[in-house]
Amino acid sequence: MDEIKTNITHQQWAIGVDIGGTSTKFGLVNHRGEICYAGKLLVTGRFEEPGIFVSALHEALLPAVANIGPENLKGIGIGAPNGNIHTGCIEHAPNLPWKGVVPLADMMTRKFQVPCKLTNDANAAAAGEMMYGIARGMKDFIMLTLGTGVGSAIVSNGHIIYGHRGLAGELGHTGIRRGRLHWSTRLDGTLETYASATGIAHTARLFLEAEPTFSLLKSCRQEDITAQQVCESALKGDKLAMSVFQYTGQILGEAIANFVMFSDPQAVILFGGVTKAGQLLLNPVAEHMEKNLLPVFRNTIKILLSELPDADAAILGASALVWDSTIK
Amino acid sequence: MDEIKTNITHQQWAIGVDIGGTSTKFGLVNHRGEICYAGKLLVTGRFEEPGIFVSALHEALLPAVANIGPENLKGIGIGAPNGNIHTGCIEHAPNLPWKGVVPLADMMTRKFQVPCKLTNDANAAAAGEMMYGIARGMKDFIMLTLGTGVGSAIVSNGHIIYGHRGLAGELGHTGIRRGRLHWSTRLDGTLETYASATGIAHTARLFLEAEPTFSLLKSCRQEDITAQQVCESALKGDKLAMSVFQYTGQILGEAIANFVMFSDPQAVILFGGVTKAGQLLLNPVAEHMEKNLLPVFRNTIKILLSELPDADAAILGASALVWDSTIK
Repeated sequence: MDEIKTNITHQQWAIGVDIGGTSTKFGLVNHRGEICYAGKLLVTGRFEEPGIFVSALHEALLPAVANIGPENLKGIGIGAPNGNIHTGCIEHAPNLPWKGVVPLADMMTRKFQVPCKLTNDANAAAAGEMMYGIARGMKDFIMLTLGTGVGSAIVSNGHIIYGHRGLAGELGHTGIRRGRLHWSTRLDGTLETYASATGIAHTARLFLEAEPTFSLLKSCRQEDITAQQVCESALKGDKLAMSVFQYTGQILGEAIANFVMFSDPQAVILFGGVTKAGQLLLNPVAEHMEKNLLPVFRNTIKILLSELPDADAAILGASALVWDSTIK
Repeated sequence: MDEIKTNITHQQWAIGVDIGGTSTKFGLVNHRGEICYAGKLLVTGRFEEPGIFVSALHEALLPAVANIGPENLKGIGIGAPNGNIHTGCIEHAPNLPWKGVVPLADMMTRKFQVPCKLTNDANAAAAGEMMYGIARGMKDFIMLTLGTGVGSAIVSNGHIIYGHRGLAGELGHTGIRRGRLHWSTRLDGTLETYASATGIAHTARLFLEAEPTFSLLKSCRQEDITAQQVCESALKGDKLAMSVFQYTGQILGEAIANFVMFSDPQAVILFGGVTKAGQLLLNPVAEHMEKNLLPVFRNTIKILLSELPDADAAILGASALVWDSTIK
């Protein structure tokens, strides 16, 4: 960090902002992914008006921007739920306090007097992996973020696929197995109902009901079971918890096979809390992906875990949007 | 045609070659999609060596090229099974007489002394739709060719998605419903096993076995039933045949919903013999696509039929590769 600080005014910086339903992270990042300033978390829900949110960000960042020299601030990148790169707006995000369509990129540009690019969190994560992470040098990959929900981004020939209206990459909502309605969309058998943290907890509950044998998870109240508990039990060798990851991995592997045959990537990169299960998840993913691929694709696709540090990944991803000249 | 001929030596022309398992079509096309010369069909299987095939094409085209003036020949575009744009090779095409990897683009360039681009037939069809057909002006669409098999091409931001190794767009082999093994790949429940002509004939046979009511199809020997017969019977109002298209349309609609959430296109364009069923197929496709889409995608995706004339579509598609400057 000493070296960064010495040269802090001799290089360009990007503001990275990651807006989540719970908290907003932000910081200043250079093109090597070094963070010279990380702001204190903002509680997103406290800002009823997006204008007040923008002002709070501005106020928090002003000293740091003065420190690098305002002429060295190249731009702002934002990852946000339902963020649309084409319009620069957050559009009807169900888990944010701001309803309707919020032209956040324009508001930030007016406040900070630099360009601002905004997209959804999964696309920002993919930009971060390309710029600073395990996807450096890759032109074709798919990113899956396995958290409370399942997000995704598709990179083809070095470009994120945004789609006609900026809505591409909703792979969590593609159908993979009939028989489980999504808790919010009511769609039947989508990937998110199985491969998210929520889906894994649900699978564990179903397995516990059906299976009379011993399990560490029997000591929890069934309705309180979390994916994290399933993961911890599985890592301790709990058979039932392990079988939950076997089942989840199979369905995720089948889904990934479909995605591979769509865009022929070099790799599929997994990110998020669910991946903490490690090989317990990755082994069945790889097995069932291979089983469902056309022979010509077999043994060519890497399943990788993100290498960006958890704490900084969101800020890095958002800031990477600024350095990506392929994004208008 | 008179007008084309008058100006034939005052404009540029592309050779379009469509190589099929049965026959090869070829012709000379200008950038407006006008064909000044269509060659006599070659029986692909007669050419045991690709070199002899290239010589036969050259011989057949020589007088027509002399006619336009060799300086007006801009290039050659080829659509072929397993054609790879990155390598210019036909790679292990199971239904062609040439085994292994055939560097056909290089061979054509050496023989004709002009650049040659080669891709698979579905990508060529998509290029044709963009250049001359219903996708003119569209930057984001998915093309599905429903014939003996199910081919596909994905266009995003004006570019065909080729993928890391040129294998993108194998949507016919993505899984959609468990329970029917593919006749060749042995993959379970892929789109092609349901939505191809072969799949439709198979569905009809299953329905006939299970359903004791009258059907026009009962006069055929079950093992000889073709998708065309199912289509003709359905168009005459035969209930069982109509229910085959209802079922096929449902599965195709579910699959298309998945594809839409991948790349967020403006439209999905259907091409091929199976589409002759018209609304009998399109109505359930639209209904079940909408039912399986996230609300944000609903009522935004057009399902269109190709408008290129059946007889010329393949040559037009292949020739369009020559005019597409985005393809290296």
